[in-house]
Formats: sequence, C-alpha cells, structure tokens
Amino acid sequence: MIPQFIEHIGIAVNSLEESIPYYENVLGLKCYAVEEVTDQKVKTAFFKVGQTKIELLEATSPDSPIAKFIEKKGPGVHHMAFAVENLEQQLETIAQKGVQLIDQTPRKGAEGLHIAFLHPKSTLGVLTELCENKSK
Amino acid sequence: MIPQFIEHIGIAVNSLEESIPYYENVLGLKCYAVEEVTDQKVKTAFFKVGQTKIELLEATSPDSPIAKFIEKKGPGVHHMAFAVENLEQQLETIAQKGVQLIDQTPRKGAEGLHIAFLHPKSTLGVLTELCENKSK
Repeated sequence: MIPQFIEHIGIAVNSLEESIPYYENVLGLKCYAVEEVTDQKVKTAFFKVGQTKIELLEATSPDSPIAKFIEKKGPGVHHMAFAVENLEQQLETIAQKGVQLIDQTPRKGAEGLHIAFLHPKSTLGVLTELCENKSK
Repeated sequence: MIPQFIEHIGIAVNSLEESIPYYENVLGLKCYAVEEVTDQKVKTAFFKVGQTKIELLEATSPDSPIAKFIEKKGPGVHHMAFAVENLEQQLETIAQKGVQLIDQTPRKGAEGLHIAFLHPKSTLGVLTELCENKSK
C-alpha cells in the first residue's frame, strides 16, 4: 500500500473547551476548525503540524465510541490515520491479507475525505484509519 | 513554541518480531533500523512515512515503562513526539506556563536527537516528547 504520510492523529479528550488552550497556548498550534460529526457522536477540533493534522475528539453522548474509549483507557491517542491513494483497492488487498476491516468500503469522513477504519485486532492495538483525498 | 512536524509516533508492542511483518507486509513500510535503548529497557524498530517516523517499542524487561504501559492499557500508541528548535529554551517557556516536565533539560535520545518528555498529566493524557536535531 505504502501510505504517503500520517494524515492525522485522533486524540480522545474529555472536553474540547479545556483542551484547545493547551494546544494553542503551550504547543503554539492554531485551531482552524471545530466540527460536529453527529453519526459518530463526537465534536472535533483540528490543528495542523507539518503534514499532519491533530484531531481532538470529545464525546457528545455517553454511548459515543470516544466516551467508551476514555472509560476504558483514559484520555489519549485514539487512532492514527494514513493518507493513501486508491483506497477502495487498498481495502480489498489488505482484507485478502487477513486484516479485519471495520468499513468494508470507503465512507465520507470529516473534511470531505473518503475514509475506512481497520480493526485494532488486526493492527496491533492501534485503531487505524486510511484516508483518501479525491479532490486533489 | 510551534513544533515543525510530528517527528515520530511511539507505539508499544508485545513483540517486534510479530509486529514488523504487519508494518512491512500490510502497510508497505520498510523497517530501516532496529536499536536497543538499554536505559529505557526497550528494543525499537523504525519506519518512515512522510515526515514522520513510526517507532515500535518492545519491553526488554518486566519493569520497562513499555511493559507497564501494556499491562495498564494494552498495546497501542505510547507517545507522540514533535520536532522543535531551541529545545532548551522551549522547556523553560512551557515550564513557566505550568507544564510538568519529565526531563528538566534535554538528554540524548535515539538517532542522536536531543529529547525531553512532558508529563501526560500536563498534556491531556498524551505522553509527549520534544525532539531537536542539532546536526541539521
């Protein structure tokens, strides 16, 4: 597959309001967007550092995947996302290699990207997302 | 501070031997170095994707920080490292902002970088490393 770069790092936080000041005032990054993804029950805040985005994730409901993650592991890195080309074909190839897919086919993610998640059981415990930017 | 890019992502794994094939055969990345860091009681394997390295970490002793991390949280992302300039000065500045430092002054890390860790209590649960490449 050979991913091109790390598209983003998803970080589970208890509260965007309490977390954005750390990224802005301590790390000096600028929050350039806040977006609610209703079907995932999360609110997200985006920062950019080099090629990579940092995506903070706050649960909007107790049954959000982010709420469950924090309950189990505490706040911290939730997933890692790679930028790839030909996502649909990549999913087929890695499924043939025995990787368990959460999304069998690409779906629409934040910022208009086509995305698919791989199951952490197949990715050594790291929830992994593949992203394709078809508008490029 | 404004970090330049994500220098690496440190990932705790049970076994390098079992993990390297996933990164090479499924993701298509190439392991370009394996290094033992005796004072941290870890063996590391390095891959590069875009600007960022992926650093797999295997404990070499049951009292390694990586063994303790896996016992508590399971295998997964252990830390996130930013490339910065003027590391010594950055540490002073962020300590003045109330961030708890694990390393008060830079020390030598893998690949000859000067590094310092910030405490996850001050970084929203994400163990955070700052790295300076003085040879550039």
